[in-house]
Amino acid sequence: LASKKVKLYFEPDGKRVEANAGEKILDVARIAGIFIESLCGGQGICGKCRVIVEKCAAGAPTEAELKHLSQKELEKKFRLACSCRVHGDCQILIPKESRGGRQRVVVEGVEAPFDLDPAISSLALKLSVPTLQRPMTDMDRVFEALIGNFGLRNVSIDYEVLKKLPDLLRTGGETVTAKIWRNSEIIDVRQGVEDGNYGLAVDIGTTKLGMQLVDLSSGKVLASVGMINPQVVFGEDIMTRASHVIERYETLEELRQAVLKGINELIDDCCRRAGVESSSILEATVVGNTVMHHIFLGICPKYLVMSPFVPAIKNPLNLKARQLGLKVSRSANVHILPVIAGFVGADAVADMLAVRLNRIEELSLLIDVGTNGEIMLGNKDRILAVSCAAGPAFEGAEIKYGMRATSGAIEKIAIEPETFEVSYRTVDNLDPRGICGSGLIDAVAEMFRTGIVDASGRIRDDLKTWRIRKGEEGAEFIVVPKRETKSGIDLSVTQKDIRELQLAKAAMYTGAYVLMKRMGVSAKDLDKVFIAGAFGTYIDKTKALMIGLFPDIALEKVSSVGNTALAGAKAALISKQARREAAEIAEKVDYVELTSDPDFPDEFIKAMALPHQELSRFASVKALLASTRIN
Amino acid sequence: LASKKVKLYFEPDGKRVEANAGEKILDVARIAGIFIESLCGGQGICGKCRVIVEKCAAGAPTEAELKHLSQKELEKKFRLACSCRVHGDCQILIPKESRGGRQRVVVEGVEAPFDLDPAISSLALKLSVPTLQRPMTDMDRVFEALIGNFGLRNVSIDYEVLKKLPDLLRTGGETVTAKIWRNSEIIDVRQGVEDGNYGLAVDIGTTKLGMQLVDLSSGKVLASVGMINPQVVFGEDIMTRASHVIERYETLEELRQAVLKGINELIDDCCRRAGVESSSILEATVVGNTVMHHIFLGICPKYLVMSPFVPAIKNPLNLKARQLGLKVSRSANVHILPVIAGFVGADAVADMLAVRLNRIEELSLLIDVGTNGEIMLGNKDRILAVSCAAGPAFEGAEIKYGMRATSGAIEKIAIEPETFEVSYRTVDNLDPRGICGSGLIDAVAEMFRTGIVDASGRIRDDLKTWRIRKGEEGAEFIVVPKRETKSGIDLSVTQKDIRELQLAKAAMYTGAYVLMKRMGVSAKDLDKVFIAGAFGTYIDKTKALMIGLFPDIALEKVSSVGNTALAGAKAALISKQARREAAEIAEKVDYVELTSDPDFPDEFIKAMALPHQELSRFASVKALLASTRIN
Repeated sequence: LASKKVKLYFEPDGKRVEANAGEKILDVARIAGIFIESLCGGQGICGKCRVIVEKCAAGAPTEAELKHLSQKELEKKFRLACSCRVHGDCQILIPKESRGGRQRVVVEGVEAPFDLDPAISSLALKLSVPTLQRPMTDMDRVFEALIGNFGLRNVSIDYEVLKKLPDLLRTGGETVTAKIWRNSEIIDVRQGVEDGNYGLAVDIGTTKLGMQLVDLSSGKVLASVGMINPQVVFGEDIMTRASHVIERYETLEELRQAVLKGINELIDDCCRRAGVESSSILEATVVGNTVMHHIFLGICPKYLVMSPFVPAIKNPLNLKARQLGLKVSRSANVHILPVIAGFVGADAVADMLAVRLNRIEELSLLIDVGTNGEIMLGNKDRILAVSCAAGPAFEGAEIKYGMRATSGAIEKIAIEPETFEVSYRTVDNLDPRGICGSGLIDAVAEMFRTGIVDASGRIRDDLKTWRIRKGEEGAEFIVVPKRETKSGIDLSVTQKDIRELQLAKAAMYTGAYVLMKRMGVSAKDLDKVFIAGAFGTYIDKTKALMIGLFPDIALEKVSSVGNTALAGAKAALISKQARREAAEIAEKVDYVELTSDPDFPDEFIKAMALPHQELSRFASVKALLASTRIN
Repeated sequence: LASKKVKLYFEPDGKRVEANAGEKILDVARIAGIFIESLCGGQGICGKCRVIVEKCAAGAPTEAELKHLSQKELEKKFRLACSCRVHGDCQILIPKESRGGRQRVVVEGVEAPFDLDPAISSLALKLSVPTLQRPMTDMDRVFEALIGNFGLRNVSIDYEVLKKLPDLLRTGGETVTAKIWRNSEIIDVRQGVEDGNYGLAVDIGTTKLGMQLVDLSSGKVLASVGMINPQVVFGEDIMTRASHVIERYETLEELRQAVLKGINELIDDCCRRAGVESSSILEATVVGNTVMHHIFLGICPKYLVMSPFVPAIKNPLNLKARQLGLKVSRSANVHILPVIAGFVGADAVADMLAVRLNRIEELSLLIDVGTNGEIMLGNKDRILAVSCAAGPAFEGAEIKYGMRATSGAIEKIAIEPETFEVSYRTVDNLDPRGICGSGLIDAVAEMFRTGIVDASGRIRDDLKTWRIRKGEEGAEFIVVPKRETKSGIDLSVTQKDIRELQLAKAAMYTGAYVLMKRMGVSAKDLDKVFIAGAFGTYIDKTKALMIGLFPDIALEKVSSVGNTALAGAKAALISKQARREAAEIAEKVDYVELTSDPDFPDEFIKAMALPHQELSRFASVKALLASTRIN
């Protein structure tokens, strides 16, 4: 029976795929390259891989399906692709909400303040001609010109460049251009005078890949591109991906190949847009959290997620593009920025580099909001860093109608305090399909402001509005009624969703609190708060303060700095000084293990309240509530 | 017709091979892995690939076959495998003389005087244990121990080693052994205390590969092995191989793969004999002439054989074994010794290193006899080097019954002056099949001593002996009559063979002469003559002097130093000082372009005579002849 073949017809892709009877739909789809949203990597946890299975001898609903699908949905033939096994030919409809779509990827960040000073230089060399009397080797003629014209000694040559040297020196004129890396290694030789050098800044996010192609002679960005990290099919968060590797070691290489494929597609994309040959890309910088960093390098991430959570290496690395499989010049140097700890990675180093936390006078709090949030506190004198396991709420996972910030995600919400009428905005202004992280913060802040939830986060059951009702998972607030949604389902924020957000924001706040305590400062001492990360760009800072995501300080001190991970990677790409400072940062930062702080449990519980159990810590929110709350 | 299939039965291999009608036998045999001797790489020049073709619709004899095969041989169905095309099924008998056999490969040389001081050291490290309070990375724990126990800072780690570090540090005890290359890079980490480090010295000769496996903690040789360079099927000499690459660039990679396969087989062989894991081999040194050097590195050798004959690079190189494809530890360093010029390679550098020409007081002449002979003259003050295109006579090519020094080759000859009776010795004491280089030198020296040839090299036609006769190519001297050979053919030295040897020895002598002239010295000023190379080991130095192969000096000053190329490679393997000296040698040696010396044409012609036209330069030979010559 195991060898019986069945045919699956995927709609709207229109793809026909042969599978073995008994296989799971998600596995079949993955192999066939058909995208079905899955946040948990097929573990039956997230309930996002909903598909409609028609004309099929499918197995009975599993426990996971019974948990995630209502009776009505089951009647409509909804199934979870991760759980449903096919035993006969069938047609599978992937509804819009399970199709992902092109996620908005923010690649812009602040411009980091570094002067143009890249690792690559172009030196035009006029070579002498070898004769029988003076039979100089190809290499010696190049060395002679480097010393004679530029005083450059002790330069080596990349092996791949050496191999092409004999023909190259004889098929052009007497002038060649050597591309020199850090004045120490020839990494390319071109005929004639040729100044064009290009570089790539790469940010490997857990969910998103961001990339910029940069002209290294001007520092100008020629193309900015982004995409979903193809690893998401293995699981939305780093813990899930690492656990796959722990179960089956070969997954490490599959994960590495997945992200590499994505990066190489982005390289193609950049090169097409800018009209640049990929072989002219001679340098790249890469940042990412420590798990992404390890997987990209092919280092097992197992010990990053097991106590005491130590990386294999912190130090910055320089590797050849060919060692990593990047489709740029094979001799290009890839500079991987240093990491700080198992949960504070090269992306956090890049964040700090982008705002130059290591050089500024002002005491600053730098917050990168995410599933694994990182918080840094300090200035030129001292920097502390902490990692906060906020959980997946900010990315829309574990949230009933949560989704990533793709087309149709509700990202802004306002609630009219008297009528509870809701106005909202979606990504790309498409019909609402779900609620993304910034939308959820807005929703809960507005529900709190308008008294729909109380300070403990409980949805009040005494308000007279059709929007509040008892759902399958307890009380819920209907944000968009089914008449306004294409799926014909009410989009709501449930009591459970609010609890998830409370956990997430409490983790972030507690992280900041513990750092301030260790530093011996309080919120009033903070000169600046930077909210970093693509996600941070969309957060309404007033609403975020309202729920107590970060300490209460004057909002004019709070600024969104965008994708600082990529901005930091770009800074390291165009400036050797930035690389030195990144290494300094990694050395300098004191990593604080949040959960081992004695105050953590109490502080965490107090931070669960909206905005906080000690309202005195949030004087400005208290004032705001007093002025607007009417219920 | 081109697609018609025919079947070939090779004897005595007993292999049946299918081929396309019209293919050449040699091409079919190569693809099927059947060895047929070929010195010219199938160009119809050497006439060595003789086979007997039975029951076959073969094409008519080609011009090359008519040149190399006598009418009698053609009647016996002898053909040249490189020229004969098959048009129907047939049986092909490969006679013994065309089957090669295991060539004697000398791998022993003088022991070069260097103290044990290898590039690799083993450092046992007791690592601290990471905790939540002190979550040190794997790498930092290793660095900590390196600094704490050995004061070793600024050490990097090979990327392949880094990847295995996390599991390695957690599956053993707290002590690991780091293998450090030149105190600067960790190239392996092993569990526990593990001192065993092994290294390989490799000599890539045009004809032969030699290898030694060395215990780097004692300097002891654990295995010495050798084989024919598998590239010989592409042609016996470097010019032929280079010309193949010039015609078709892809041949470069084929040649590289051929030699790599041979080297990797020798590595297997060494490891089996010594009971060493190939992954424990952490260092290798490689020498070879400049064409072998370039091909091994994948660098096109085209410009080495075109004026002004310049290499791509002279400098020593350090590459990772994985970059080259050597089957040792992937992280092992492969040190490729420097070359001097297009025709004076890393083998010559190793020759000099082995006798430490760069350090000795005595004025010495170092001669490496071969198709491309190299001659070095000098001492600690100055060294001159020259390359002599001796031609293939010393290797048995272009000689009617010439062969390499494999089983059955006549290597020693003595002629009784009155009766002209010949006594001889063959390699492995097998039935005589042909004459190798040292045998030819013996034969011509003895023929000259006994008056069978005169000083001009002409075979005298007035002597009364059945051994001298008029053959198809003019006069010839029968060394072994057909009754004593299995093939039933008289083995003779022809007038043409003698001319080939005269050309070869004249080239060698002229090289030495020009160097002495440039240095302003004469034969009496020479303190030592070293005869290097495997071939040199078998040369009878009295006979070699008799024909004037090298300048006339007292024979007690002449010594055979064996395979100094491999001895030099081994010196560089066990001693960093030797590597420094090798680089010094490559810088210090003045290369002399022989053919552009104004005296070259005249001197070359004078050196054609036996031993030399100016007999006053060979006083000791003159005396010897006076005492023994009776005819």
